[in-house]
Amino acid sequence: MRAAVFDSGVGGLTVVKSLIEHKLFEEIIYFGDTARVPYGIKDKNTIIRYSLEALEFFKNFDPDILITACNSVSAHALEELRSNASFPVVGVIEPGVIAAKRRLKPTDQILIIGTNATISSGRYEKLLRFHGFDNLVSKPTPLFVPLVEEEILDGQIVEATMKHYFGSMKPDGVILGCTHFPLLQNALKNYFGPQTILIHSGEAICDYLEKELGIGSTNQEPDLKLFASENPEKLKRIANNWLRYPC
Amino acid sequence: MRAAVFDSGVGGLTVVKSLIEHKLFEEIIYFGDTARVPYGIKDKNTIIRYSLEALEFFKNFDPDILITACNSVSAHALEELRSNASFPVVGVIEPGVIAAKRRLKPTDQILIIGTNATISSGRYEKLLRFHGFDNLVSKPTPLFVPLVEEEILDGQIVEATMKHYFGSMKPDGVILGCTHFPLLQNALKNYFGPQTILIHSGEAICDYLEKELGIGSTNQEPDLKLFASENPEKLKRIANNWLRYPC
Repeated sequence: MRAAVFDSGVGGLTVVKSLIEHKLFEEIIYFGDTARVPYGIKDKNTIIRYSLEALEFFKNFDPDILITACNSVSAHALEELRSNASFPVVGVIEPGVIAAKRRLKPTDQILIIGTNATISSGRYEKLLRFHGFDNLVSKPTPLFVPLVEEEILDGQIVEATMKHYFGSMKPDGVILGCTHFPLLQNALKNYFGPQTILIHSGEAICDYLEKELGIGSTNQEPDLKLFASENPEKLKRIANNWLRYPC
Repeated sequence: MRAAVFDSGVGGLTVVKSLIEHKLFEEIIYFGDTARVPYGIKDKNTIIRYSLEALEFFKNFDPDILITACNSVSAHALEELRSNASFPVVGVIEPGVIAAKRRLKPTDQILIIGTNATISSGRYEKLLRFHGFDNLVSKPTPLFVPLVEEEILDGQIVEATMKHYFGSMKPDGVILGCTHFPLLQNALKNYFGPQTILIHSGEAICDYLEKELGIGSTNQEPDLKLFASENPEKLKRIANNWLRYPC
């Protein structure tokens, strides 16, 4: 099977990492819209327009499934992608919520963090409520994106930023509602303490593909092809560093 | 006279503010490429492509001059804009350097801060050296952009970020090489102390227009028209808050 993975930039490689580890596909076609990144500060209509353009690109490869690694895309453009694609389109929000359901109790307090676009959509919140959770706190944490891009993953700035966003909160679970946030996992664990469960989109989507869609392991390393709307060399360089995988 | 002002987003309004105060034009046409902001993390070729698209838009208004408020555009796309426009195109880099020459001594240490795209271009540095300055430190400070966009203009995160970028530096002058940075002026003054001179693009460009190009005051409030590639309402709202001016 051939999976197309769409992201606004390089962050979706955290999802690709999980897909590679779980060996769910023979081939992964990744497209990052690096010329227009980030999406998380943009409007619903702009995100839909960019997503439909990416869909046209993916159609050339005749994929079996399209995975939108980007939470802002998953939150705003999933329906439009689905009605324009002849293959299934899977976002990261439903998988994240199902992972929360597996790992947390209905009374647990869940903190949802993401970009402005993702949080303002209210999609995580709505779906979590539908699944019986009602102790929810949503918090846009847009500064985490440039921190990760600057490779500032711990230290004083990260601590001050977490204090600014979270104060003395002690949630039972945190939904990492942005592809960049898994890279802050250690800092978040240090901040909240070991009892707080972090839900990571990459792991959640693999779980979803396996358990909900019944996609099994191919038992082989997938072939990874990377595309970007600007500077594909940079995307490949970052992928080499992060994934340590041929592409 | 009619001035066109081009910026990657809303930051260029800091330049518009100065243009309004100096009353140099009867009409100001502002375009912010909010659907593709920020430019400072993007490639030279992408910045050139986007700038030439903006130029086509401005041609509809038959402006007398085009001012590129965005430092990343001024650093990378000025020549291409000039060779495709039938009116003068003025960037913010040369005016910033001329302002530095007026206010600082050749032996003074100058710190140049900006986005990755602006700093990596080396344009400020090259032009400052040409004008006899050689005690120069260039520093990309990309985190300042989202801090301003999040309206975090002082406090622990800002202090930790300045400490991260500047340590114990005490420059004689700082070139604020990004339209967002004037909003951090107070925090920068607190950090460096009162003896450090801050060079602000908006003020520098007005000085340049008046003293180098001989443009005089119209003695009237300019007519301001705002355009954006997404969410023009948001641009107008921000302009209303910042400029307190009809648009």
